[in-house]
Amino acid sequence: MAYAESMLIEQLRKEVLDANLEIVRRGLVMYTFGNASGYSPEEGLMAIKPSGVPFEKLRPEDMVVTDLSGRIVEGSLKPSSDVDTHLEIYRNFAGARGVVHTHSSYAVAWAQARREIPCFGTTHADYWYGSIPVTAPLANAEIESQYELNTGKAIVRRFAGLDPSRLPGVLVASHGPFAWGPSPAKAAMNAVLLEEIAKIASVTVGLNPAATGIEQALLDEHFLRKHGPGATYGQG
Amino acid sequence: MAYAESMLIEQLRKEVLDANLEIVRRGLVMYTFGNASGYSPEEGLMAIKPSGVPFEKLRPEDMVVTDLSGRIVEGSLKPSSDVDTHLEIYRNFAGARGVVHTHSSYAVAWAQARREIPCFGTTHADYWYGSIPVTAPLANAEIESQYELNTGKAIVRRFAGLDPSRLPGVLVASHGPFAWGPSPAKAAMNAVLLEEIAKIASVTVGLNPAATGIEQALLDEHFLRKHGPGATYGQG
Amino acid sequence: MAYAESMLIEQLRKEVLDANLEIVRRGLVMYTFGNASGYSPEEGLMAIKPSGVPFEKLRPEDMVVTDLSGRIVEGSLKPSSDVDTHLEIYRNFAGARGVVHTHSSYAVAWAQARREIPCFGTTHADYWYGSIPVTAPLANAEIESQYELNTGKAIVRRFAGLDPSRLPGVLVASHGPFAWGPSPAKAAMNAVLLEEIAKIASVTVGLNPAATGIEQALLDEHFLRKHGPGATYGQG
Amino acid sequence: MAYAESMLIEQLRKEVLDANLEIVRRGLVMYTFGNASGYSPEEGLMAIKPSGVPFEKLRPEDMVVTDLSGRIVEGSLKPSSDVDTHLEIYRNFAGARGVVHTHSSYAVAWAQARREIPCFGTTHADYWYGSIPVTAPLANAEIESQYELNTGKAIVRRFAGLDPSRLPGVLVASHGPFAWGPSPAKAAMNAVLLEEIAKIASVTVGLNPAATGIEQALLDEHFLRKHGPGATYGQG
Repeated sequence: MAYAESMLIEQLRKEVLDANLEIVRRGLVMYTFGNASGYSPEEGLMAIKPSGVPFEKLRPEDMVVTDLSGRIVEGSLKPSSDVDTHLEIYRNFAGARGVVHTHSSYAVAWAQARREIPCFGTTHADYWYGSIPVTAPLANAEIESQYELNTGKAIVRRFAGLDPSRLPGVLVASHGPFAWGPSPAKAAMNAVLLEEIAKIASVTVGLNPAATGIEQALLDEHFLRKHGPGATYGQG
Repeated sequence: MAYAESMLIEQLRKEVLDANLEIVRRGLVMYTFGNASGYSPEEGLMAIKPSGVPFEKLRPEDMVVTDLSGRIVEGSLKPSSDVDTHLEIYRNFAGARGVVHTHSSYAVAWAQARREIPCFGTTHADYWYGSIPVTAPLANAEIESQYELNTGKAIVRRFAGLDPSRLPGVLVASHGPFAWGPSPAKAAMNAVLLEEIAKIASVTVGLNPAATGIEQALLDEHFLRKHGPGATYGQG
Repeated sequence: MAYAESMLIEQLRKEVLDANLEIVRRGLVMYTFGNASGYSPEEGLMAIKPSGVPFEKLRPEDMVVTDLSGRIVEGSLKPSSDVDTHLEIYRNFAGARGVVHTHSSYAVAWAQARREIPCFGTTHADYWYGSIPVTAPLANAEIESQYELNTGKAIVRRFAGLDPSRLPGVLVASHGPFAWGPSPAKAAMNAVLLEEIAKIASVTVGLNPAATGIEQALLDEHFLRKHGPGATYGQG
Repeated sequence: MAYAESMLIEQLRKEVLDANLEIVRRGLVMYTFGNASGYSPEEGLMAIKPSGVPFEKLRPEDMVVTDLSGRIVEGSLKPSSDVDTHLEIYRNFAGARGVVHTHSSYAVAWAQARREIPCFGTTHADYWYGSIPVTAPLANAEIESQYELNTGKAIVRRFAGLDPSRLPGVLVASHGPFAWGPSPAKAAMNAVLLEEIAKIASVTVGLNPAATGIEQALLDEHFLRKHGPGATYGQG
């Protein structure tokens, strides 16, 4: 590997470590739950948290580097058990440069209830351009063989006709959330936001079981003032 | 601008920064959510948080100063995207010297459920003299043009016949809370109280869906022992 | 006042300050909500938090000392606005040496729902020998004149036939909890426990709306192994 | 007692103290609630927290050491009042080397609701191989005599036909959770996980009262990839 490439990978590993630590700092994970990865399309390489290592012991060099087929390129540890789900997302969602999976409480509760989260308000509309989808349950055969890959395929199937760059996360039925974004840091932020949106939505349906999603005009206004070519939010 | 004026503005900027930091310290905001402003009627000037700047980087001089029409008088940054909502409140609610907008979880849940918060008890009655109102949804045309100004107008319309000095906050339907007060610090306190009142009320309706607001005599007793000419609370 | 008496009062003031700070440390109060007092039957004197003073500024000498009729004996500040409720409790509940009032979230929610908290389990039974009662609402005349005293009277009336030493706290309807105990510290602990019991109970009724109180034998076993002459708990 | 034995007991005491402190750090206990123990089958000895001693004062030498019949072998303090429940678990569940009892909020709520926690998702399936069971209520006679021992017997009875090494915890009806594991540290971790699983499950049934347990294939996949001879999780 050339020197320039190795610098890029070193940078990627640091970003992936930061994203893993960020979901701990934000209270989204306990013990060794959850994992973050990052993808560099220039090299065609992904870095991901190793399996079952406590977050407080993680160092940049512990991140496992694989190519898009899952072949380990660098690193002496086993990658996260969910590595094949991450890879399937990178192979199919153009623009995804980071993926974060957590077992955060409220997002998991919606996933366990197998309910999509309607866009009840502008907190949600600022980051997801519509309901947060739930995957279909896997068939037994999909669970018994290549379970993690099939989880990824269920996510990709659920996004047929949907734009993953405008809906940067999903609930895997009976499991929990996967979020992504244009960098590991943004993927971690989307995982944090998904948890907060899930929490607020659970209180909302308690207060008003008939609550419905917001009007399209309000969804457009909020999502588009923050995202895309016409965005006006921030100092950019 | 005269020296004395500039001293007042410097003071206003500091108070506005403090109010912005207070809502972070109290756990009401994540990332760049939420914004606080302050208004000085002597100068006819408002200071407000800049748009999309992380709270931990904010300095007093980053606060954007505008006149009541929204013209920027001082500051090199873009003001909060909600600036026109703040201005509409200052133009219409006499005595408002601070405005705070958050996406705090429970207040947003009531806003998303489009339910006003009945005055279920004395915690509420100590600070709001009646139900915390919800605005009517905006029409599509109001969303598509001058959305933030129209949000302010919806708040003002909702307060026809209501006294904003005795009801220092509102829920904007499908969006979240705006609170105000006689200073930026008091507006921040009202935003914190609104969140707590919303939390307690959500548990209350879970325990007793038929719960109703308290008797007028109890509302009078609690609100008026803390507010207005006959107040007896505190060391004043 | 003799020297020995003044030493006892100094000690009482410190204990009362500690109880006020304890309910802050335990997350039961925000701003100037809530108040703790202590009573010394030897002197017939009570010390209580002053009205509306921020907790972080409280010093022992700020505690206001009154006799049982409410006459101020020492202290230059106004006592808590709830002073007459505290006094009525000390005048009627033999053995009460501390009283703590908070607006803690879950206890207030039950008070607002006007539901007593059934003894759903042993966490409750370890400290309350039966349901945590709710007072009857006050009549308008009781609110309009001597409100705080009448709140105390409503508490005392609710305990007709009940033993306040075995039920060390109550929910005042549409208001919130008052707890007491054989010292200011124990009263504060009871206020903390009441909040936790209220929280657990609110989740319990969400999971099982038909949940009922525990069997008398289990209530006896748990309460009596911790309290009274046959207690076996601890190192005593 | 031989020197080697005494070293092993010293080690056991430290592990038991750590487990007691861990449940405090994780927010599972308040005051003197809860207790952890550890068992060494080589010596046939158990170490357990003393009764009613504040956690912050606990030292390794305060742990009370008993044999499996409950006879105190070392230690000058009284053991936890729940000692007979712990002993009954060690006597009956082969492989249990640690037992932890808490009054954590959500687990207690399920115990009070007398509902078992269905395996709603993979967070649960990663650690419990099926529903978390609830014991049957005790008969009055079982409460009135040898209550703590009979609590242990109710746990053991509930596990007739169940494998405690694959279901490392239980809800005692109207009381709260007991968890166990192959070490005091693992028992503490299982107590923490049980609380989180209970919290997520309570939100799940609020969102979907008809939610059911997951498919057997998904339960197998998640539990067995972490536990037993075919486990693939971690670096092992």
